[in-house]
Amino acid sequence: MADFRPAPELDVTEWLNTPEPLSLSKLRGRVVVIEAFQMLCPGCAQMALPQLARVQEQFGRTGVAVLGLHTVFEHHETQGPRSALEAFLREYRYTFPVGIDRPSPQGRGMPVTMAAYRMEGTPTLILVDRQGRLRRQAFGHMPDLQLGAEIMALIAERDAG
Amino acid sequence: MADFRPAPELDVTEWLNTPEPLSLSKLRGRVVVIEAFQMLCPGCAQMALPQLARVQEQFGRTGVAVLGLHTVFEHHETQGPRSALEAFLREYRYTFPVGIDRPSPQGRGMPVTMAAYRMEGTPTLILVDRQGRLRRQAFGHMPDLQLGAEIMALIAERDAG
Amino acid sequence: MADFRPAPELDVTEWLNTPEPLSLSKLRGRVVVIEAFQMLCPGCAQMALPQLARVQEQFGRTGVAVLGLHTVFEHHETQGPRSALEAFLREYRYTFPVGIDRPSPQGRGMPVTMAAYRMEGTPTLILVDRQGRLRRQAFGHMPDLQLGAEIMALIAERDAG
Amino acid sequence: MADFRPAPELDVTEWLNTPEPLSLSKLRGRVVVIEAFQMLCPGCAQMALPQLARVQEQFGRTGVAVLGLHTVFEHHETQGPRSALEAFLREYRYTFPVGIDRPSPQGRGMPVTMAAYRMEGTPTLILVDRQGRLRRQAFGHMPDLQLGAEIMALIAERDAG
Repeated sequence: MADFRPAPELDVTEWLNTPEPLSLSKLRGRVVVIEAFQMLCPGCAQMALPQLARVQEQFGRTGVAVLGLHTVFEHHETQGPRSALEAFLREYRYTFPVGIDRPSPQGRGMPVTMAAYRMEGTPTLILVDRQGRLRRQAFGHMPDLQLGAEIMALIAERDAG
Repeated sequence: MADFRPAPELDVTEWLNTPEPLSLSKLRGRVVVIEAFQMLCPGCAQMALPQLARVQEQFGRTGVAVLGLHTVFEHHETQGPRSALEAFLREYRYTFPVGIDRPSPQGRGMPVTMAAYRMEGTPTLILVDRQGRLRRQAFGHMPDLQLGAEIMALIAERDAG
Repeated sequence: MADFRPAPELDVTEWLNTPEPLSLSKLRGRVVVIEAFQMLCPGCAQMALPQLARVQEQFGRTGVAVLGLHTVFEHHETQGPRSALEAFLREYRYTFPVGIDRPSPQGRGMPVTMAAYRMEGTPTLILVDRQGRLRRQAFGHMPDLQLGAEIMALIAERDAG
Repeated sequence: MADFRPAPELDVTEWLNTPEPLSLSKLRGRVVVIEAFQMLCPGCAQMALPQLARVQEQFGRTGVAVLGLHTVFEHHETQGPRSALEAFLREYRYTFPVGIDRPSPQGRGMPVTMAAYRMEGTPTLILVDRQGRLRRQAFGHMPDLQLGAEIMALIAERDAG
């Protein structure tokens, strides 16, 4: 399994729903599920984030880290402010930690982490294994049955490793 | 049917998705379906607005006026700007006209039209008959079967009137 | 509206969920909603009959007659016996009256009422107005919003007639 | 993991959708997913069997054996005949192998395999590991996310064993 490259570190300016900042290096040793989203992206609000909440419910207690990453690459004025994201998370009652991806130094366009992962858009699901390697990156919707299996495959590497 | 009171006029600062401003007085003679919503209200984004789009699809061609009313009474900073609502409507591909309810003169709190209707919150569905009378005001979700029937009951008054 | 033909009478061998046999002539003066179905037809079990139960819930108290018609045209051995249909209705807790369409004199093939209506298959929705006229016959699925509107259009003819 | 008891063998009178009879002993070495169902059980037709078809789609190619078990314990007259089950499977286009649980020697009541597993009713999901041990028995609905994880946990034991 030497073929998997390290998952790029999350370059986040602020964290919500967590008492202290998170990072992939801090989460080393745990399976990490990340949903990159934008609050105004319909596929995120209607499908991906409700699914992430189910992942948190199903796997959160087993040590899996479940995170959102707010990758604003359009509608910066509306989606950019921390207060906007806070309002969104409160309204939808999402309690998983969410990091705000660092805006591009050029101002507009893809934020830094999104660019490092070369994401195609939102929502994008990312799975990172206990060694911090990028094991899955999927743009769009993944069925629950498949997602549950993919997360468990990484969990199960605990004993096999 | 003399018991129905006139529907309060829409006090709107700006209209989107329509070449010119609308008003209930202009729409006299047509059945009007209005969904009062906020872009960050989950019940609006997940249930009420998709339903309103179905209403537009089903009844729009028969002369029924189908409108959204953005009644921002919380998270003013995020939801208040016209650009935020524009981004929301574009992302969700909603094409029905949407009016922005006039903010309260006191600044925060319920906007003017929302207050005139004494709405309890969002989403709130409003049905206005051809005579401009308020025939239905419902907070929360109404099943499609019932909504279809209620709209048709007002349409059918055409011939009976 | 002289163009609508009389709805063919229901030729039913047995009725379930009703103390006495029904017929369109007995139901004259009431709007009638009929769902022709087969218990082993997936579109019936998963879509049409749950919808008919919603119609019963929404309109049953307003005087609309809501009926099922078991039009067995395949798998006669399994679907044909009254006991099979009874078991199906009990398991799914359907309480609307259901008539068993009279088997073809030729034995196999389309039963008599189904043939009289020239149905294309199951599920088929039928709407009959207060004068006993066939106002709608639709093969396959009709959205709730449309169905609610179509039923109400017939109800509303009460006062206009 | 010595605590898991062997899964009782399937005592089946006939198999459908498979060229030759199956058994747990023949399937030793493969993870086995079994859904015990009755064709007239609404929770089976509406939830469990569509889910089993998704399991077949997701895991069938990876060597997991996906089976139905028709455990008729009520409405024997209707559900009992092989022809009835054949019609049901054909109508719903289910292609996974289905075994017919051997009727109780006492005639009515629970069939033999259902009794051996002490099932509470239908649907009941059963997971058997590569060593033929009963690893999960769940009455009612299990969310896809959990089911995907549980199946993968057994698949992953391949390498760890």
